[in-house]
Amino acid sequence: MLQTVKATAKKVPGGLTVENEARGFKLIMDEPVEMGGTNKGMNPIEALLCALGSCQVIVASAFAKAKNFKFEECFVEVEGDFDPEGFMGNPDIRNGFQDIRFKVHFKTDEAQDKCEEFAEFMAQQCPVEDNLVNGVKVTRTSVVIDK
Amino acid sequence: MLQTVKATAKKVPGGLTVENEARGFKLIMDEPVEMGGTNKGMNPIEALLCALGSCQVIVASAFAKAKNFKFEECFVEVEGDFDPEGFMGNPDIRNGFQDIRFKVHFKTDEAQDKCEEFAEFMAQQCPVEDNLVNGVKVTRTSVVIDK
Repeated sequence: MLQTVKATAKKVPGGLTVENEARGFKLIMDEPVEMGGTNKGMNPIEALLCALGSCQVIVASAFAKAKNFKFEECFVEVEGDFDPEGFMGNPDIRNGFQDIRFKVHFKTDEAQDKCEEFAEFMAQQCPVEDNLVNGVKVTRTSVVIDK
Repeated sequence: MLQTVKATAKKVPGGLTVENEARGFKLIMDEPVEMGGTNKGMNPIEALLCALGSCQVIVASAFAKAKNFKFEECFVEVEGDFDPEGFMGNPDIRNGFQDIRFKVHFKTDEAQDKCEEFAEFMAQQCPVEDNLVNGVKVTRTSVVIDK
Protein backbone atom coordinates (compact mmCIF):
# COMPACT_ATOMS: atom_id res chain seq x y z
CA MET A 1 0.00 0.00 0.00
CA LEU A 2 1.34 3.38 -1.00
CA GLN A 3 2.68 5.43 1.90
CA THR A 4 3.65 9.07 1.97
CA VAL A 5 7.03 9.51 3.63
CA LYS A 6 7.79 13.02 4.87
CA ALA A 7 10.73 15.18 5.93
CA THR A 8 11.39 18.85 6.59
CA ALA A 9 14.61 20.81 6.11
CA LYS A 10 14.75 24.18 7.88
CA LYS A 11 17.49 26.78 7.70
CA VAL A 12 19.09 27.62 11.04
CA PRO A 13 19.73 31.41 11.16
CA GLY A 14 23.25 32.36 10.04
CA GLY A 15 25.62 30.17 8.01
CA LEU A 16 24.53 27.14 6.01
CA THR A 17 23.30 24.87 8.82
CA VAL A 18 20.04 23.02 8.21
CA GLU A 19 17.90 21.22 10.79
CA ASN A 20 16.09 18.25 9.30
CA GLU A 21 13.24 16.36 10.83
CA ALA A 22 11.55 13.11 9.81
CA ARG A 23 9.07 11.19 12.01
CA GLY A 24 10.38 13.08 15.05
CA PHE A 25 14.05 12.30 14.37
CA LYS A 26 16.30 15.33 14.02
CA LEU A 27 19.37 15.54 11.81
CA ILE A 28 21.71 18.51 11.44
CA MET A 29 23.41 19.05 8.10
CA ASP A 30 25.98 21.69 7.25
CA GLU A 31 28.95 22.29 4.97
CA PRO A 32 32.61 22.29 5.96
CA VAL A 33 34.31 25.66 6.48
CA GLU A 34 36.01 25.52 3.05
CA MET A 35 32.53 25.33 1.45
CA GLY A 36 31.29 28.32 3.47
CA GLY A 37 29.62 26.43 6.29
CA THR A 38 30.33 25.98 9.99
CA ASN A 39 30.81 22.19 9.87
CA LYS A 40 28.09 21.27 12.38
CA GLY A 41 27.20 18.07 10.57
CA MET A 42 27.68 16.02 7.43
CA ASN A 43 26.55 17.63 4.21
CA PRO A 44 23.63 16.50 2.02
CA ILE A 45 25.73 14.53 -0.46
CA GLU A 46 27.44 12.66 2.39
CA ALA A 47 23.97 11.97 3.83
CA LEU A 48 22.95 10.64 0.41
CA LEU A 49 25.86 8.17 0.50
CA CYS A 50 24.89 7.17 4.07
CA ALA A 51 21.31 6.57 2.92
CA LEU A 52 22.57 4.28 0.15
CA GLY A 53 24.93 2.36 2.43
CA SER A 54 22.38 2.03 5.23
CA CYS A 55 19.72 0.87 2.85
CA GLN A 56 22.00 -1.94 1.63
CA VAL A 57 22.83 -2.96 5.20
CA ILE A 58 19.17 -2.94 6.26
CA VAL A 59 18.26 -5.15 3.30
CA ALA A 60 21.04 -7.52 4.36
CA SER A 61 19.77 -7.66 7.95
CA ALA A 62 16.10 -7.93 7.01
CA PHE A 63 16.44 -10.66 4.38
CA ALA A 64 19.41 -12.78 5.55
CA LYS A 65 17.24 -15.43 7.18
CA ALA A 66 14.84 -15.70 4.22
CA LYS A 67 17.80 -16.01 1.83
CA ASN A 68 19.55 -18.53 4.09
CA PHE A 69 22.63 -16.31 4.37
CA LYS A 70 24.42 -16.04 7.72
CA PHE A 71 26.82 -13.27 8.68
CA GLU A 72 28.28 -11.93 11.90
CA GLU A 73 29.08 -8.45 10.67
CA CYS A 74 28.26 -6.35 7.64
CA PHE A 75 29.39 -2.92 6.56
CA VAL A 76 29.33 -0.99 3.33
CA GLU A 77 31.89 1.59 2.21
CA VAL A 78 30.42 4.09 -0.23
CA GLU A 79 32.19 6.75 -2.26
CA GLY A 80 31.15 9.21 -4.90
CA ASP A 81 32.95 11.49 -7.35
CA PHE A 82 31.83 15.08 -6.95
CA ASP A 83 33.18 18.26 -8.52
CA PRO A 84 32.12 21.39 -6.56
CA GLU A 85 32.66 23.50 -9.68
CA GLY A 86 29.41 22.14 -11.09
CA PHE A 87 27.51 23.18 -7.99
CA MET A 88 29.29 26.57 -8.09
CA GLY A 89 27.93 27.27 -11.55
CA ASN A 90 30.20 25.75 -14.21
CA PRO A 91 27.64 24.57 -16.80
CA ASP A 92 30.02 21.94 -18.23
CA ILE A 93 30.27 20.05 -14.96
CA ARG A 94 27.51 17.94 -13.48
CA ASN A 95 26.11 19.34 -10.19
CA GLY A 96 25.58 16.01 -8.48
CA PHE A 97 27.73 12.92 -8.11
CA GLN A 98 29.27 11.80 -11.39
CA ASP A 99 29.80 8.24 -10.20
CA ILE A 100 29.02 6.28 -7.03
CA ARG A 101 30.82 3.10 -5.99
CA PHE A 102 30.46 0.85 -2.99
CA LYS A 103 32.16 -2.11 -1.41
CA VAL A 104 30.31 -4.66 0.73
CA HIS A 105 32.08 -6.31 3.67
CA PHE A 106 30.91 -9.40 5.53
CA LYS A 107 32.32 -11.29 8.45
CA THR A 108 30.90 -14.69 7.60
CA ASP A 109 31.61 -18.36 7.04
CA GLU A 110 29.74 -18.28 3.73
CA ALA A 111 31.68 -18.86 0.49
CA GLN A 112 32.69 -15.96 -1.77
CA ASP A 113 30.17 -16.82 -4.49
CA LYS A 114 27.31 -16.94 -2.00
CA CYS A 115 28.41 -13.55 -0.62
CA GLU A 116 28.45 -12.10 -4.15
CA GLU A 117 24.99 -13.50 -4.83
CA PHE A 118 23.60 -12.05 -1.59
CA ALA A 119 25.23 -8.67 -2.28
CA GLU A 120 23.58 -8.68 -5.70
CA PHE A 121 20.23 -9.36 -4.02
CA MET A 122 20.88 -6.46 -1.59
CA ALA A 123 21.52 -4.10 -4.51
CA GLN A 124 18.44 -5.26 -6.43
CA GLN A 125 16.19 -4.86 -3.41
CA CYS A 126 17.54 -1.54 -2.10
CA PRO A 127 15.06 1.36 -2.51
CA VAL A 128 17.75 4.06 -2.43
CA GLU A 129 19.84 2.31 -5.10
CA ASP A 130 16.70 2.03 -7.26
CA ASN A 131 16.06 5.78 -7.00
CA LEU A 132 19.68 6.72 -7.72
CA VAL A 133 20.23 4.31 -10.60
CA ASN A 134 16.87 4.71 -12.31
CA GLY A 135 16.04 8.27 -11.30
CA VAL A 136 12.71 9.45 -9.94
CA LYS A 137 10.36 12.29 -10.76
CA VAL A 138 10.97 15.24 -8.40
CA THR A 139 8.45 18.08 -8.52
CA ARG A 140 8.36 21.41 -6.72
CA THR A 141 4.65 21.75 -6.06
CA SER A 142 4.63 25.30 -4.69
CA VAL A 143 6.59 28.23 -3.34
CA VAL A 144 4.93 29.66 -0.27
CA ILE A 145 5.59 33.07 1.28
CA ASP A 146 4.98 32.71 5.02
CA LYS A 147 3.96 35.76 7.02
CA MET B 1 38.37 19.58 -9.20
CA LEU B 2 36.96 16.12 -8.70
CA GLN B 3 36.68 15.07 -5.07
CA THR B 4 35.96 11.65 -3.64
CA VAL B 5 33.26 11.89 -0.96
CA LYS B 6 33.08 8.93 1.42
CA ALA B 7 30.72 7.33 3.91
CA THR B 8 30.48 4.04 5.79
CA ALA B 9 27.35 2.18 6.93
CA LYS B 10 27.91 -0.50 9.56
CA LYS B 11 25.38 -2.91 11.00
CA VAL B 12 24.93 -2.65 14.76
CA PRO B 13 24.55 -6.22 16.19
CA GLY B 14 20.89 -7.30 16.51
CA GLY B 15 17.92 -5.68 14.80
CA LEU B 16 18.20 -3.44 11.75
CA THR B 17 20.12 -0.50 13.25
CA VAL B 18 22.96 0.95 11.14
CA GLU B 19 25.68 3.31 12.29
CA ASN B 20 26.79 5.63 9.52
CA GLU B 21 29.91 7.76 9.46
CA ALA B 22 31.04 10.48 7.06
CA ARG B 23 33.98 12.83 7.75
CA GLY B 24 33.76 12.00 11.46
CA PHE B 25 30.02 12.70 11.72
CA LYS B 26 27.91 9.81 12.99
CA LEU B 27 24.33 9.11 12.00
CA ILE B 28 22.14 6.27 13.26
CA MET B 29 19.51 4.86 10.91
CA ASP B 30 16.94 2.23 11.72
CA GLU B 31 13.46 1.11 10.73
CA PRO B 32 10.27 1.58 12.75
CA VAL B 33 8.99 -1.41 14.75
CA GLU B 34 6.30 -2.20 12.14
CA MET B 35 9.09 -2.66 9.55
CA GLY B 36 11.03 -4.98 11.87
CA GLY B 37 13.41 -2.41 13.37
CA THR B 38 13.85 -0.88 16.80
CA ASN B 39 13.18 2.73 15.71
CA LYS B 40 16.49 4.23 16.89
CA GLY B 41 16.62 6.72 14.03
CA MET B 42 15.11 7.77 10.73
CA ASN B 43 15.28 5.22 7.94
CA PRO B 44 17.33 5.52 4.73
CA ILE B 45 14.48 6.78 2.55
CA GLU B 46 13.64 9.47 5.11
CA ALA B 47 17.35 10.40 5.15
CA LEU B 48 17.20 10.61 1.35
CA LEU B 49 14.35 13.14 1.59
CA CYS B 50 16.32 15.10 4.22
CA ALA B 51 19.34 15.15 1.91
CA LEU B 52 17.18 16.59 -0.88
CA GLY B 53 15.54 19.21 1.34
CA SER B 54 18.81 20.22 3.00
CA CYS B 55 20.55 20.50 -0.31
CA GLN B 56 17.88 22.93 -1.55
CA VAL B 57 18.14 25.00 1.64
CA ILE B 58 21.94 25.12 1.48
CA VAL B 59 21.80 26.31 -2.13
CA ALA B 60 19.36 29.03 -1.01
CA SER B 61 21.67 30.14 1.81
CA ALA B 62 24.85 29.97 -0.24
CA PHE B 63 23.59 31.82 -3.33
CA ALA B 64 21.02 34.32 -1.98
CA LYS B 65 23.47 37.22 -1.94
CA ALA B 66 24.83 36.52 -5.44
CA LYS B 67 21.26 36.24 -6.77
CA ASN B 68 20.17 39.40 -4.93
CA PHE B 69 17.45 37.51 -3.08
CA LYS B 70 16.77 38.30 0.58
CA PHE B 71 14.92 36.07 3.00
CA GLU B 72 14.60 35.79 6.76
CA GLU B 73 13.63 32.14 6.91
CA CYS B 74 13.55 29.22 4.52
CA PHE B 75 12.31 25.69 4.88
CA VAL B 76 11.48 22.88 2.53
CA GLU B 77 8.83 20.22 3.05
CA VAL B 78 9.59 17.03 1.14
CA GLU B 79 7.41 13.99 0.62
CA GLY B 80 7.70 10.81 -1.37
CA ASP B 81 5.35 8.01 -2.35
CA PHE B 82 6.70 4.64 -1.28
CA ASP B 83 5.10 1.22 -1.37
CA PRO B 84 6.85 -1.24 1.00
CA GLU B 85 5.47 -4.16 -1.03
CA GLY B 86 8.08 -3.41 -3.70
CA PHE B 87 10.86 -3.61 -1.16
CA MET B 88 9.31 -6.78 0.28
CA GLY B 89 9.57 -8.52 -3.07
CA ASN B 90 6.52 -7.75 -5.24
CA PRO B 91 8.10 -7.50 -8.71
CA ASP B 92 5.28 -5.31 -10.05
CA ILE B 93 5.96 -2.51 -7.56
CA ARG B 94 8.94 -0.21 -7.68
CA ASN B 95 11.35 -0.65 -4.73
CA GLY B 96 12.22 3.01 -4.32
CA PHE B 97 10.14 6.17 -4.23
CA GLN B 98 7.61 6.34 -7.06
CA ASP B 99 7.32 10.12 -6.87
CA ILE B 100 8.93 12.89 -4.81
CA ARG B 101 7.38 16.32 -4.25
CA PHE B 102 8.55 19.33 -2.30
CA LYS B 103 7.27 22.70 -1.23
CA VAL B 104 9.57 25.68 -0.60
CA HIS B 105 8.71 28.20 2.13
CA PHE B 106 10.25 31.64 2.53
CA LYS B 107 9.71 34.37 5.06
CA THR B 108 10.65 37.29 2.86
CA ASP B 109 9.64 40.68 1.49
CA GLU B 110 10.38 39.54 -2.06
CA ALA B 111 7.53 39.25 -4.56
CA GLN B 112 6.02 35.84 -5.43
CA ASP B 113 7.52 35.76 -8.93
CA LYS B 114 11.01 36.46 -7.59
CA CYS B 115 10.54 33.68 -5.01
CA GLU B 116 9.50 31.26 -7.78
CA GLU B 117 12.51 32.25 -9.86
CA PHE B 118 14.89 31.75 -6.93
CA ALA B 119 13.28 28.38 -6.07
CA GLU B 120 13.80 27.32 -9.68
CA PHE B 121 17.47 28.30 -9.38
CA MET B 122 17.73 26.26 -6.13
CA ALA B 123 16.35 23.19 -7.89
CA GLN B 124 18.63 23.57 -10.91
CA GLN B 125 21.72 23.98 -8.74
CA CYS B 126 21.00 21.26 -6.17
CA PRO B 127 23.36 18.25 -6.45
CA VAL B 128 20.95 15.83 -4.76
CA GLU B 129 18.07 16.80 -7.05
CA ASP B 130 20.37 16.29 -10.05
CA ASN B 131 21.24 12.75 -8.92
CA LEU B 132 17.63 11.82 -8.17
CA VAL B 133 16.12 13.29 -11.32
CA ASN B 134 18.79 12.26 -13.78
CA GLY B 135 20.05 9.12 -12.06
CA VAL B 136 23.69 8.24 -11.51
CA LYS B 137 25.81 5.17 -12.15
CA VAL B 138 26.10 3.08 -8.96
CA THR B 139 28.59 0.21 -9.02
CA ARG B 140 29.38 -2.44 -6.42
CA THR B 141 33.14 -2.75 -6.88
CA SER B 142 33.74 -5.75 -4.60
CA VAL B 143 32.42 -8.05 -1.91
CA VAL B 144 35.03 -8.60 0.77
CA ILE B 145 35.03 -11.37 3.37
CA ASP B 146 36.74 -9.95 6.46
CA LYS B 147 38.45 -12.31 8.88
